[in-house]
Amino acid sequence: MATQGQVITCKAAVAWEANKPLVVEDVQVAPPQAGEVRVKVLFTALCHTDAYTWSGKDPEGLFPCILGHEAAGIVESVGEGVTEVQPGDHVIPCYQAECRECKFCKSGKTNLCGKVRAATGVGVMMNDRKSRFSVNGKPIYHFMGTSTFSQYTVVHDVSVAKIDPKAPLEKVCLLGCGVPTGLGAVWNTAKVESGSIVAVFGLGTVGLAVAEGAKAAGASRIIGIDIDSKKFDRAKTFGVTEFVNPKEHDKPIQQVLVDLTDGGVDYSFECIGNVSVMRAALECCHKGWGTSVIVGVAASGQEICTRPFQLVTGRVWKGTAFGGFKSRSQVPWLVDKYMKKEIKVDEYITHNLSLGEINEAFHLLHGGDCLRCVLSMD
Amino acid sequence: MATQGQVITCKAAVAWEANKPLVVEDVQVAPPQAGEVRVKVLFTALCHTDAYTWSGKDPEGLFPCILGHEAAGIVESVGEGVTEVQPGDHVIPCYQAECRECKFCKSGKTNLCGKVRAATGVGVMMNDRKSRFSVNGKPIYHFMGTSTFSQYTVVHDVSVAKIDPKAPLEKVCLLGCGVPTGLGAVWNTAKVESGSIVAVFGLGTVGLAVAEGAKAAGASRIIGIDIDSKKFDRAKTFGVTEFVNPKEHDKPIQQVLVDLTDGGVDYSFECIGNVSVMRAALECCHKGWGTSVIVGVAASGQEICTRPFQLVTGRVWKGTAFGGFKSRSQVPWLVDKYMKKEIKVDEYITHNLSLGEINEAFHLLHGGDCLRCVLSMD
Ligand SMILES: NC(=O)c1ccc[n+]([C@@H]2O[C@H](COP(=O)([O-])OP(=O)(O)OC[C@H]3O[C@@H](n4cnc5c(N)ncnc54)[C@H](O)[C@@H]3O)[C@@H](O)[C@H]2O)c1
Ligand SMILES: NC(=O)c1ccc[n+]([C@@H]2O[C@H](COP(=O)([O-])OP(=O)(O)OC[C@H]3O[C@@H](n4cnc5c(N)ncnc54)[C@H](O)[C@@H]3O)[C@@H](O)[C@H]2O)c1
Ligand SMILES: [Zn+2]
Ligand SMILES: [Zn+2]
Ligand SMILES: [Zn+2]
Ligand SMILES: [Zn+2]
Repeated sequence: MATQGQVITCKAAVAWEANKPLVVEDVQVAPPQAGEVRVKVLFTALCHTDAYTWSGKDPEGLFPCILGHEAAGIVESVGEGVTEVQPGDHVIPCYQAECRECKFCKSGKTNLCGKVRAATGVGVMMNDRKSRFSVNGKPIYHFMGTSTFSQYTVVHDVSVAKIDPKAPLEKVCLLGCGVPTGLGAVWNTAKVESGSIVAVFGLGTVGLAVAEGAKAAGASRIIGIDIDSKKFDRAKTFGVTEFVNPKEHDKPIQQVLVDLTDGGVDYSFECIGNVSVMRAALECCHKGWGTSVIVGVAASGQEICTRPFQLVTGRVWKGTAFGGFKSRSQVPWLVDKYMKKEIKVDEYITHNLSLGEINEAFHLLHGGDCLRCVLSMD
Repeated sequence: MATQGQVITCKAAVAWEANKPLVVEDVQVAPPQAGEVRVKVLFTALCHTDAYTWSGKDPEGLFPCILGHEAAGIVESVGEGVTEVQPGDHVIPCYQAECRECKFCKSGKTNLCGKVRAATGVGVMMNDRKSRFSVNGKPIYHFMGTSTFSQYTVVHDVSVAKIDPKAPLEKVCLLGCGVPTGLGAVWNTAKVESGSIVAVFGLGTVGLAVAEGAKAAGASRIIGIDIDSKKFDRAKTFGVTEFVNPKEHDKPIQQVLVDLTDGGVDYSFECIGNVSVMRAALECCHKGWGTSVIVGVAASGQEICTRPFQLVTGRVWKGTAFGGFKSRSQVPWLVDKYMKKEIKVDEYITHNLSLGEINEAFHLLHGGDCLRCVLSMD
């Protein structure tokens, strides 16, 4: 390619400061170094983690930065030693890396690869601990090792999944975060069995993907809980069989669910990021075996609490990151499942905008109607 | 037998009031009704749950009552419909029942049988919701469905395990609570694998049984944590390979352990009943997979807390009651393992006294030297 080895100047939405509108700027994107891949991002969706860091509430957030982590694109060029992808490959950037070599990857027990974390956690690339982005010479931090709110981005080779080139990138970009998180919370973390009673707290993208995963796993009842009753109609098509709006009950929501289910649910999922709801999600579980999975991300510093008796009498408290999926190995498998119509993706996309409308897209995300808004990058 | 169908008058230690010395009294023990078994208790040990209820801190504690739940004896007579034990059988009373018919027993997921709980939780027998104990006509509450601080007790048939008559009752009485709790926490609840790094908080009977169970499971390192360094020598014989006294460190104990183990332990067990230690036990677990099991019983109303990020990054928080063992099915198996010298029991017995010395036995339990004190009932 003509651009290989060159700095590329392209459009990117830069978050110069916390809580100030993003600015679409001409950004210089340096070529990939050893073990790096430069990707032409074609579509990116917005997720609450982007909004959280942008808001300034994330104490680890660094500015200026380029946010974005749910996307799809095409490899433009690769750095030295990169063997698993080549220019032209269709890819999904993965904020959760998979190196297949570190203690975590080799444990067989987790998807939380440790290889590039020390660099991605502070907004730089591992090779030289610098950013590949700059605006007029001023470096701009990376975000989550992905920074997909840019027409071109540079990621580590362990952070990119090669997918079926026939897959529509404007859809499968969603397989970079929210949808796999919900499906995997059910399939990998909780391992819900057929016949189980499941409670899903929060019916946004992640909660709906939990419902979808639970339905596929054969759950007998899928109880959706949301304070916004407008969510209920749509949730039916994702598998939710019953609804509870906590605002319509005087009793604590855990008690409402225990009463509804003759003792509690088999599995519950918190898909909101609210620590009081996390407690309720644990406490609505059935004595003896009920398992609660925390999926939502709470604001920094907040804590979950419960009486230890809840655990001594058999409940289990877990959490999940990216649904426990090994990113490079399993994102392609999820794309294939989508192509075979075994999982939904299109149904989570409620809005389509372009990069220039990104501030409006964030605004939509905070409204009640939006699940995922996909931006086209041209 | 001559006593069958008769009220038996025998000695029992009655807790008339919270926190007042127990009084050894002549107690009337009514014959067993349908589904009940009257047991001549020969040996009983003391456990912290007895002391906790006695102290008056347990809001569910009822007085006057006969405490005790770690014992062994011989069936004196059985009520109507009792088929699985008969007079003369050697038995261990089980505070955790096993009916094999309720939702819990049939789940295959828990040992927490629900059949007689509604009665045993309020100190009575299920049949007529009355007590079988009285002193001069005044009813005395049962405790945990076992009340073994009496020469004769009445238990539900689902709460008694028939054991090998060759087993020495003065030893295997310990298989009624603390030792199985520790072993089962490792084998059933955590399912520790060979090669694992294990942390045990608290080196009393329960913690030492955890260490023993972990050693049998092939743990590579067993780190014992106790604020009383006198516990360390004895703990070696139970499998503990390293010791940490939190008082000798300035850093929080979870950080000390993370540093010692290059990222954290694979499994941790809280065997104290202290909610701050429960938090430390979770937080010293390795990211991605570390599992913490709460075994200790905290005082009523106390809560455990942590940051949800601890769980989202892969740690698992669990608890255990009676180590997850199904009592009637598995206590006899534990007795057999003891007879084959595959598990220790004798080594946990540090003191032997008689029923008349029970107040002194409680005093010993609170000192640092006592693991288990076994009382002979004659
Ligand atoms: N663990 C992970 O790897 C991971 C990955 C992606 C997203 N997340 C997190 O998952 C969470 C959900 O993401 P999303 O995109 O579905 O969000 P969303 O905002 O679209 O959905 C949240 C839903 O919860 C409802 N809600 C809010 N407060 C509630 C309450 N008190 N009780 C009941 N319902 C309530 C809202 O009405 C909304 O429908 C976020 O915290 C996000 O950061 C985690
Ligand atoms: N879950 C169950 O089914 C079950 C069954 C039996 C006992 N238990 C509970 O298990 C716990 C332990 O029982 P035990 O008989 O071994 O008790 P124990 O008192 O003999 O042992 C506790 C040990 O913890 C140590 N300790 C106290 N505070 C500490 C701290 N802050 N840090 C480190 N070490 C500390 C003490 O020095 C002692 O060695 C109790 O809470 C008991 O009620 C639970
Ligand atoms: Zn996300
Ligand atoms: Zn790795
Ligand atoms: Zn006990
Ligand atoms: Zn039962």
